[in-house]
Amino acid sequence: MIEAVSKPAQSSALDVIDRCCIAARHAAQRLRGLPDAAKARALRQAAVAIREDAAVILAANARDMAAGEARGLTAALLDRLRLDTARLQAIADSVDAVAALPDPVGEEIDRRIAPAGMTLRRVRVPIGVIGIIYESRPNVTVDAAALCVRSGNAAILRGGSEAVHSNRALHAALVRGLGAAGLPEEVVQLVPIQDREAVGAMLAAAGGIDLIIPRGGKSLVARVQADARVPVLAHLDGICHSFVHASADPMMAEKIVLNAKLRRTGICGAMETLLIDRDYPHSAPLLATLADAGCELRGDDMVMELEPRAVSALDEDWDTEYLDAILSVAFVEGLDGALEHIARHSSGHTDAIITSDKAAAARFQAEVDSAIVMVNASSQFADGGEFGLGAEIGIATGRLHARGPVALEGLTTYKWLVDGEGHIRA
Amino acid sequence: MIEAVSKPAQSSALDVIDRCCIAARHAAQRLRGLPDAAKARALRQAAVAIREDAAVILAANARDMAAGEARGLTAALLDRLRLDTARLQAIADSVDAVAALPDPVGEEIDRRIAPAGMTLRRVRVPIGVIGIIYESRPNVTVDAAALCVRSGNAAILRGGSEAVHSNRALHAALVRGLGAAGLPEEVVQLVPIQDREAVGAMLAAAGGIDLIIPRGGKSLVARVQADARVPVLAHLDGICHSFVHASADPMMAEKIVLNAKLRRTGICGAMETLLIDRDYPHSAPLLATLADAGCELRGDDMVMELEPRAVSALDEDWDTEYLDAILSVAFVEGLDGALEHIARHSSGHTDAIITSDKAAAARFQAEVDSAIVMVNASSQFADGGEFGLGAEIGIATGRLHARGPVALEGLTTYKWLVDGEGHIRA
Repeated sequence: MIEAVSKPAQSSALDVIDRCCIAARHAAQRLRGLPDAAKARALRQAAVAIREDAAVILAANARDMAAGEARGLTAALLDRLRLDTARLQAIADSVDAVAALPDPVGEEIDRRIAPAGMTLRRVRVPIGVIGIIYESRPNVTVDAAALCVRSGNAAILRGGSEAVHSNRALHAALVRGLGAAGLPEEVVQLVPIQDREAVGAMLAAAGGIDLIIPRGGKSLVARVQADARVPVLAHLDGICHSFVHASADPMMAEKIVLNAKLRRTGICGAMETLLIDRDYPHSAPLLATLADAGCELRGDDMVMELEPRAVSALDEDWDTEYLDAILSVAFVEGLDGALEHIARHSSGHTDAIITSDKAAAARFQAEVDSAIVMVNASSQFADGGEFGLGAEIGIATGRLHARGPVALEGLTTYKWLVDGEGHIRA
Repeated sequence: MIEAVSKPAQSSALDVIDRCCIAARHAAQRLRGLPDAAKARALRQAAVAIREDAAVILAANARDMAAGEARGLTAALLDRLRLDTARLQAIADSVDAVAALPDPVGEEIDRRIAPAGMTLRRVRVPIGVIGIIYESRPNVTVDAAALCVRSGNAAILRGGSEAVHSNRALHAALVRGLGAAGLPEEVVQLVPIQDREAVGAMLAAAGGIDLIIPRGGKSLVARVQADARVPVLAHLDGICHSFVHASADPMMAEKIVLNAKLRRTGICGAMETLLIDRDYPHSAPLLATLADAGCELRGDDMVMELEPRAVSALDEDWDTEYLDAILSVAFVEGLDGALEHIARHSSGHTDAIITSDKAAAARFQAEVDSAIVMVNASSQFADGGEFGLGAEIGIATGRLHARGPVALEGLTTYKWLVDGEGHIRA
């Protein structure tokens, strides 16, 4: 019997990712020197291509939707997956918006004269190769890639399986547009395999990928944080607190608290725990307003006494991100009590105080160690666009490199330029 | 037979490090809110204590020196280990110098008005708990700790075994001084065990330690970079290039090249490869001057032709950090050739061009992707003090958080302070 010629071994996930990294590094080197106008033009071409390919992209999305429905995805997940004409237009518009953002590359951060007399300048440069690991929302394919290109970085994208056709179609349009402006194809790569090992290979690619940003649910983010050998910018939990100080203006408190919990319950900046100063005289109406608006309140005996619709809180409720119309409520002993609760339970994302006492506001801002610390504002503002940063690739609650909304600046690093005139060191 | 009561199990390295981390975290929380003056005073008290304890510290060092000699440490290593009255005085002086540096904590990085109208301020805060893993030089015990305290961070130090008595004595003086000013002891901890597992436990302490900075030889740094689950600021190699452009002024070129290689051959900013433009007309005297000064030159045929004392370079010489009076020399095809060589061989630390052509200088600074890119200056300037940063905890060649000399700013992160007046998100 003639032996069949053995099929060549399937590329392992490591090989695939390795090739992506090498290609991305070359693309990053080319992108690094591209002027502002060239990057902006390329992004505008990408927006054009996305609009031109609308039918193809929506057809691809229809395939994902059908598969998702057949698999029994929840309504919420299907909604995240869905693209329609309006959403696709918004995606293209956001690429144009990113194209219009000022180029961070080359910006002079500071300048000084060295003791020996040379001029020292710190200037922004791209980080290099950025890996985005995401699930659900197909728009991330485009949004994250656009921010990377704007800041001179090459991107390696690895999206969720449920959106595989949508991601491929969006990526194809994106790359067609960037290519029409002369950018190499590998500036934005979509990892061509969907198996779990691809994620592991990306997480292990120290030296190949310079930064990984996960976008998705807790289990994805937790896995990335636990396993990555590559630096990561991420937030795991958004357990955001709002503290109503005894001196808070009741109308302001009500307005902010309702907005912070209920404007959109599913975003990371939504308030998950309300802390009320025992000396605040308007708790009952505040709790009633929340309950009237359909919010389930979970608290201690005092909460349940003031608001009969409230139920008893369990210990784990203080560390739970509901992403729903559910709120943990606790009474605390003044600012000290609020600070102590936040120190124990905050996830370091966004915490707020509502107060008319300037000293209390100042102390809250000084002592709370979260990425965003607010006075008299809704935690729903925890967003790059709302911070005037133009766009956001994610929110980071780690301690290094970038904290809070990560925008174009967070996708850069810097180098020192030294200008001498023959200076030698003594 | 009566069974002997079993000895309690030795604390594992993991337990020891875990306890250090918990204590450090508490100390960091207390240090975070300490005002500038309190931290400065504590450091001055530490300098006083070090001077007062000079005899004890020098006696401890004598024990390490005797042990080192008995173990056959090289002269160079013994020199790194040695403390004498002058060196100890310099150590105390440097603590006073750090005490006098401006406090980075609380500094407002920038301020803006959000689209919705709130004021947004970014302010510097300490990173938290910093781990320093080092070998040889006992002064690191004090230098690194002082920089951490100045920037509001708690430090966990793990020094080399060869300096164990010196480190303990220095640490004891340091902590005595800080304690006299009211700081908790655990602000600076010296890991009480010397086994290798202690390092592994620190590297694994994600969440316990916020940043690790290795100071020492290549094998230590490489291990830290390979195994750390905690973010690391480090540089592995200092393969620094100086490129003599065709237009370079010959007197300037000679002055800079000699200084860059030979001022101190053992520091990371020492030049390791000299690139000479084929069109530079004064190569022979330049090479002769280097050889006259006792530098071994390794190059290609053209180098050996111009300078008979030169020897043939091997492939690995272009990627070798000699830390000695040895220099790799290559002729390159103009700026293009230099950029290509640097792209392939630089370790991203410090690379320099010597030129009188402004366009060449600008292109070199734009295209070289190292942490420090110099024009007409000696790479020996790659140092925090020489950059006017006041002090330096190390040099970083990674891409995130801090690049080049890491000083007080690099030991901080930031948080966003939002000042609203009842703002809610639409």
